[in-house]
Amino acid sequence: MDIKRYEKDLDYSYALGVYPTIDLFKYRANQVSRVILSSKAGSNSGVSEIIAACKQSSLPIEVNDKAIDKISDKENTYCIGVFEKYQTQLSVEKPHVVLVNPSNTGNLGTILRTMHGFEFKDIAIIKPGVDIFNPKTIRASMGSVFAMNYTYFDSIQEYFDQFPKEPYFFATDGKTILENVKPHRTFTLIFGNESTGLSDELVGDGKTVRIPFSSEIDSLNLSISVGIALYHLFPHRFI
Amino acid sequence: MDIKRYEKDLDYSYALGVYPTIDLFKYRANQVSRVILSSKAGSNSGVSEIIAACKQSSLPIEVNDKAIDKISDKENTYCIGVFEKYQTQLSVEKPHVVLVNPSNTGNLGTILRTMHGFEFKDIAIIKPGVDIFNPKTIRASMGSVFAMNYTYFDSIQEYFDQFPKEPYFFATDGKTILENVKPHRTFTLIFGNESTGLSDELVGDGKTVRIPFSSEIDSLNLSISVGIALYHLFPHRFI
Repeated sequence: MDIKRYEKDLDYSYALGVYPTIDLFKYRANQVSRVILSSKAGSNSGVSEIIAACKQSSLPIEVNDKAIDKISDKENTYCIGVFEKYQTQLSVEKPHVVLVNPSNTGNLGTILRTMHGFEFKDIAIIKPGVDIFNPKTIRASMGSVFAMNYTYFDSIQEYFDQFPKEPYFFATDGKTILENVKPHRTFTLIFGNESTGLSDELVGDGKTVRIPFSSEIDSLNLSISVGIALYHLFPHRFI
Repeated sequence: MDIKRYEKDLDYSYALGVYPTIDLFKYRANQVSRVILSSKAGSNSGVSEIIAACKQSSLPIEVNDKAIDKISDKENTYCIGVFEKYQTQLSVEKPHVVLVNPSNTGNLGTILRTMHGFEFKDIAIIKPGVDIFNPKTIRASMGSVFAMNYTYFDSIQEYFDQFPKEPYFFATDGKTILENVKPHRTFTLIFGNESTGLSDELVGDGKTVRIPFSSEIDSLNLSISVGIALYHLFPHRFI
């Protein structure tokens, strides 16, 4: 069976590594089409868990170092979970994160991981935006991508038409500081592109939020900003 | 003049990109030995600032696309600042961040950027640890590495012998939650390796701090944990 290096247009993608593959089975077992192990995988508890999951899903396990070398850029990838891409629906009741034109696969993965950590499970991405199923995103998310609901939208307006939640726009010149943000109803946190942020046009007369930082720098890293905002709004941060 | 790809043992390194090179001049002008521009650099305000800085330091500017291709892995690197590596002293009065065995260049760079943003300027790295002058670290720091004081130590004990500050050890099973951390005197925030965290032996009977997160994940990304902790302790987060 032939195997291709990842491209955005493929209708399948790869979870690279033991832990992302475990999360793939945990959250999206029906999507898994194939599991490839390295001959160096050995038999630690993670690998045993994957072998058990394959048996349960009646999936054959293939040991194929050539395929792993072809797909993975990193050394020491012991396992690859091949899965069919899927669509999900965003929750109507729960808070959302919206990323406008995110451009960095690693940043997106770290954001998904952090969302999972702070119990935000719904992400909207405004196009153009990086591919959520890029193997680099999946790896940086440590598999958390599989626990998420995601949808791509052509514009922020299209998103608001479907989800009229209370929007908070994060901007370095935002009017309200993060400490004072206390949403009353279900809300959406909106973050701009890594380099350009959010345009004035997009923000309009919406509520803007600022994370205070030293005047010696221009901006915080996007994933750090999202992480701080989600921590602040995590209901269980006092427990 | 010959130019080499970066290696840890070189006594010089490279700031890749216009903004890291501007920060190199801003904070460490005396260390700059050479500036290389791409023929595609054009004449935006950043490039003009670098040209002015070179004049002030009597440094020649060299246009050399071959050298840039050789040193930089990324496309669109318009400028490289070559600098002599240097040693710094950590501040005795100010709070420190200590990273024990950090292994990821990008993570370290993001942490340095975030430290700069929250006015923490002193970092201790316990060996073995990633190279603070690796061009990938410098790039991820957006040049903030040049605003920092840093020192490598062979062990945490060697660090404590020199800096007997109030230590807070960050651990997923820490006793105190971050919200309750209110240091009385000058303090040190200590974070473990990306995969293995801090060992019980290293923590001893020190104060341990936990950033609460969902039980669905094992840990937060290291740079996210550091970012949240520094934000919490940033004196100006209410301004």
